[in-house]
Amino acid sequence: MGNEGSYVTLGLKTWNAQIDRADKLFGGLSSEEILREIAPGRNRLLYLWGYLTAVHDAMLLLLSGERLHPEFDVAFVSNPDKSRADIPSHEQVRRAWNAVNAELRKGFEKLSWSDWVQRHSAVSEEDFAKDASRNRFAILLSRTNHLSYHLGQAVLGRK
Amino acid sequence: MGNEGSYVTLGLKTWNAQIDRADKLFGGLSSEEILREIAPGRNRLLYLWGYLTAVHDAMLLLLSGERLHPEFDVAFVSNPDKSRADIPSHEQVRRAWNAVNAELRKGFEKLSWSDWVQRHSAVSEEDFAKDASRNRFAILLSRTNHLSYHLGQAVLGRK
Repeated sequence: MGNEGSYVTLGLKTWNAQIDRADKLFGGLSSEEILREIAPGRNRLLYLWGYLTAVHDAMLLLLSGERLHPEFDVAFVSNPDKSRADIPSHEQVRRAWNAVNAELRKGFEKLSWSDWVQRHSAVSEEDFAKDASRNRFAILLSRTNHLSYHLGQAVLGRK
Repeated sequence: MGNEGSYVTLGLKTWNAQIDRADKLFGGLSSEEILREIAPGRNRLLYLWGYLTAVHDAMLLLLSGERLHPEFDVAFVSNPDKSRADIPSHEQVRRAWNAVNAELRKGFEKLSWSDWVQRHSAVSEEDFAKDASRNRFAILLSRTNHLSYHLGQAVLGRK
């Protein structure tokens, strides 16, 4: 295996490890536990899970695909927690989280090594010419860290 | 620039971004603020900062170097927060954090691209033959995520 493949494999391994962690953490919560706050006065676990789902859903655009749940943005991105009564239910968030991450995994597996260092669809050709680090691998690394950041918070709400 | 270089550059860029974030977050705390807990009954910010310093200090072994602050382990790794009175002070943690991360940055810059996919000094040749993903780049990615995880917690203690 050439070195390029090793880097991509390691990047995906780290991503998958964090997804597995999130699956266990959020997936194991009861319908009461999911309504707990991560700390007094902070976001509830349901909001955080929905928010991560929305952010990952937007990653489907990296694969030139279409989003599965753009409607999550109103509930979990553009508005703060507890500001709206009509947000997706625990079960809807669970299904969307699983569907979005399964779709990402499928798409990631289809990419060739060189696809990872190509520009993603949210960057113009002009901007990419100026800064070639705005590629898919960069997004993978930053979104993996984004997930870790919020997992560190979610774990505080669990117990 | 070949693709191998792009991956390493992106990995280091993500690492440096999290270090900068930690510098700003922890470095900006007063001597009172550093004693706040991240959530009621949880670790104090000082303990978390010392703990991250110890974990990063151990990363110097990846560079076949020597640790600068092995004594941090007793205070911040093998014992929980608030169990010992004689832990390093705010100022000692600040100095150690800066020294350790500067040393890592210097070491990382000296590595060639192929050094990143070589086994690190904590893995035996035999184990590396079985699993070539146990290399320096893997550690870089996992420690970056480790830092992000705890930054997500530290930010809750700040306000």
